[in-house]
Amino acid sequence: MYEGAVQDLIDELGRLPGVGPKSAQRIAFHLLQADEADVSRLARALTEVKARVRFCSVCGNVAESDVCRICADPRRDATSICVVEEPKDVVAIERTREFRGRYHVLGGAISPIDGVGPSDLRVTELMQRLASGEVTEVIIATDPNLEGEATATYLARLLKDMGLRVTRLASGLPVGGDLEYADEVTLGRAFEGRRLIDA
Amino acid sequence: MYEGAVQDLIDELGRLPGVGPKSAQRIAFHLLQADEADVSRLARALTEVKARVRFCSVCGNVAESDVCRICADPRRDATSICVVEEPKDVVAIERTREFRGRYHVLGGAISPIDGVGPSDLRVTELMQRLASGEVTEVIIATDPNLEGEATATYLARLLKDMGLRVTRLASGLPVGGDLEYADEVTLGRAFEGRRLIDA
Repeated sequence: MYEGAVQDLIDELGRLPGVGPKSAQRIAFHLLQADEADVSRLARALTEVKARVRFCSVCGNVAESDVCRICADPRRDATSICVVEEPKDVVAIERTREFRGRYHVLGGAISPIDGVGPSDLRVTELMQRLASGEVTEVIIATDPNLEGEATATYLARLLKDMGLRVTRLASGLPVGGDLEYADEVTLGRAFEGRRLIDA
Repeated sequence: MYEGAVQDLIDELGRLPGVGPKSAQRIAFHLLQADEADVSRLARALTEVKARVRFCSVCGNVAESDVCRICADPRRDATSICVVEEPKDVVAIERTREFRGRYHVLGGAISPIDGVGPSDLRVTELMQRLASGEVTEVIIATDPNLEGEATATYLARLLKDMGLRVTRLASGLPVGGDLEYADEVTLGRAFEGRRLIDA
């Protein structure tokens, strides 16, 4: 409906995840009226990300060199590996400052409905890392949903007889939430995982 | 939280309207895994839009030359001008195929709360177009909200004694909607504007 370049931009923006035709139009007009400098900064950021960012050859996290910052950091505990689905999960866990080990990014979760099986994930790479014998604990931190649980179960079975401590992140009530608003599965898990209070 | 280029891209995407930090992250990771060609097409579309698109010197619509396609089209009726707020409104009206005249894009609506007064809109340019005497009808098609109504009222007063036919788009029930779900203002307008049925 628009003339050449505007329509091209709307089309390209509309291909991004979570950007519908209306948002694409809105963003395009915003950019049309924005400073030239802002728009070229965005264009440059796009080009740069493809040119500079790759995936860590060890853990699969995003990296700007062959190995990511975390894998390259000698202060991180090499005996503990936290297995996550995506690089953004690494960021979420790093924010907690609770974990000082290393990560392994699977690149997704097992989902038969989407045709994603174990061979589509970085499972072989995980097994290779564990083969060195340095690692003693594997923390499975896949998402607490159907696919994440299926992946956790699959991995737990695979790692069962390797003499490792295999753990899963606790399920329970979110901190700061209201008990009455918790769904029954979460509340059930919170009961199941209840802990003695030290008093 | 991310390494250089990824974080830069997330920051730039997060500046777009309607894109929050979570969506920015999601889009960035999508692009990271997308084909190099797709990403450079988007980067190019951004650069192109700034290089090639400008605003029509006659009507204020987006254009790739000094004058937009509609103003340049001799088959469009030059006696009728439809006044809209934004270029996207031109596209919406063009889709109806109901209007064969020309447009005038104000570039917004009067909104004291946002500090937008008549002088911030392309009102002077409209008056200059009307001065030639060629135009006989002005259709005010600003949004049916507070700002749009205020702008319509302002323009209607301004054009009052110029011997023009000044009209406003009809308000009423949306076609295909349910009467019971219409808000009371819309339903009131639908009553007010009721028409005789030719039978």
